[in-house]
Amino acid sequence: MINKLIAKIQKTKAPIVVGLDPMLSYIPEHIQKKAFEEYGETLEGAAEAIWQFNKEIVDKTYDLIPAVKPQIAMYEQFGIEGLKAYKKTIDYCKSKDLVVIGDIKRGDIGSTSAAYAVGHLGKIQVGSKCYVPFDEDFATVNPYLGSDGVKPFIEVCQEEGKGIFVLVKTSNPSSGEFQDQLVDGRPLYELVGEKVAQWGEEHMGDTYSYVGAVVGATYPEMGAVLRKLMPKTFILVPGYGAQGGQGKDLVNFFNEDGLGAIVNSSRGIIAAYKQEKYASFGPENFGDASRAAVEDMASDIRQALEAR
Amino acid sequence: MINKLIAKIQKTKAPIVVGLDPMLSYIPEHIQKKAFEEYGETLEGAAEAIWQFNKEIVDKTYDLIPAVKPQIAMYEQFGIEGLKAYKKTIDYCKSKDLVVIGDIKRGDIGSTSAAYAVGHLGKIQVGSKCYVPFDEDFATVNPYLGSDGVKPFIEVCQEEGKGIFVLVKTSNPSSGEFQDQLVDGRPLYELVGEKVAQWGEEHMGDTYSYVGAVVGATYPEMGAVLRKLMPKTFILVPGYGAQGGQGKDLVNFFNEDGLGAIVNSSRGIIAAYKQEKYASFGPENFGDASRAAVEDMASDIRQALEAR
Repeated sequence: MINKLIAKIQKTKAPIVVGLDPMLSYIPEHIQKKAFEEYGETLEGAAEAIWQFNKEIVDKTYDLIPAVKPQIAMYEQFGIEGLKAYKKTIDYCKSKDLVVIGDIKRGDIGSTSAAYAVGHLGKIQVGSKCYVPFDEDFATVNPYLGSDGVKPFIEVCQEEGKGIFVLVKTSNPSSGEFQDQLVDGRPLYELVGEKVAQWGEEHMGDTYSYVGAVVGATYPEMGAVLRKLMPKTFILVPGYGAQGGQGKDLVNFFNEDGLGAIVNSSRGIIAAYKQEKYASFGPENFGDASRAAVEDMASDIRQALEAR
Repeated sequence: MINKLIAKIQKTKAPIVVGLDPMLSYIPEHIQKKAFEEYGETLEGAAEAIWQFNKEIVDKTYDLIPAVKPQIAMYEQFGIEGLKAYKKTIDYCKSKDLVVIGDIKRGDIGSTSAAYAVGHLGKIQVGSKCYVPFDEDFATVNPYLGSDGVKPFIEVCQEEGKGIFVLVKTSNPSSGEFQDQLVDGRPLYELVGEKVAQWGEEHMGDTYSYVGAVVGATYPEMGAVLRKLMPKTFILVPGYGAQGGQGKDLVNFFNEDGLGAIVNSSRGIIAAYKQEKYASFGPENFGDASRAAVEDMASDIRQALEAR
């Protein structure tokens, strides 16, 4: 799957991932209205609105991008109905040949991480039958519990040819509270990064590992250090756009081969029609606004990479 | 909710929580067979088996215990159908007046943690209507992202009178890999513990905070240190029984008032009928075996507390 991700990045010339993190407030009035007319102002109605919103954005952008990253929390907040929309979105994106990164940030003790790994990346046995419950291509994983919590994911990935991105240095303002604490003079995130590189050796693709890392665009200097520390690790970089990261901040996350990173934007793409820059599209054409935002983001990153 | 938890511990004289973490391999043949006859060897069939298994254990133990802790991963591994069984289990336990601790170990950047908090502990607005998606009483939270990731949970808890348990020192063998790293001569988990105590001041019950901590029974010496560091923090203690912890290891986690901790056992209770000690009950009477295991565990902890 890491090989497929890289091939798709090379084909689209766009190392970007669209974060499908729908909030009801992002969804244009006409989509909400139609969903509520059909299902009422219910969790089912909200899930239908989310699904129709996602579908339009995917339809308008899938040929430009290698991957999407649905954030499961945005679906889980609507309970079971929301999670059905999460699954529907995964299946639809895969039918469009997009790589799907499930932003689930799971992580637990061994047997429990194994259950998450099976549910999201693997197969579950029921009697004599076998099922694929959520079937993302990649999942994000929280490292706080150590190797015990991460290795069950890697084992399932080895069986299924799938991958993970382990949180190393997150994009949020307070990420330093624990992640930046100095251990023998070095920040904790560097130790986590070293572990990610070690874990990654257990499951290599052709040039990069199936075990990737999450490092926020909002911390470009730390990105440069981590890039060197984990040379064969693909870095998923959230925090571009709405969270404050810009193209020029991103070059540090890439290797000399122009690969090694994939940059996420969520709100900046999916709610583009709400920005002044794309307002002329109007809410009816929100998908076209998202397409324009994807093109601008890809070009911003390409220019930054060429200028270095 | 922390006040209710404490009142129920005092009433049952059992500071214990039953971990409803069903694996198909724990579920007696006759329950699986019946579920598969009705729904086939499907995810729905597996979910039905889990639900019937849980129901019997709850029916046979609810009068002895203050709380249950369903581990969502064990449901999530069966996809949407599994999560329906999770929700059904929560609702049933609440109808039996049990406090429900959702072991979800979520944690993300601010807006995303807010979505998890709403979905599990709060209410979600859909148009003019309001819904309670999962409705646990407490949830476990991963602190790796810092205050940003934890505070949205606390805000929802303040609105709803609910609580959280933040992972401080987990029970698994490799928990020390990052959690024990020394920062200015002190392990990281102590820093996390101090933060938990601080966060807890923002949402106090009568004697303890609504913001609790998770500290594994497998690390009793660290438990003693953390107990002093977080005097008003209720500690959820996993790792008793199957993971290796014993009654005598647990006294460190309690305050002088005999409160301040609640000890979880999962496999040791729900799969008790598989142990030699309870084998005479037979698989047909697995619920009675679980009841006996609860009584033995409560008495083990009471004796250890009296002996100190």
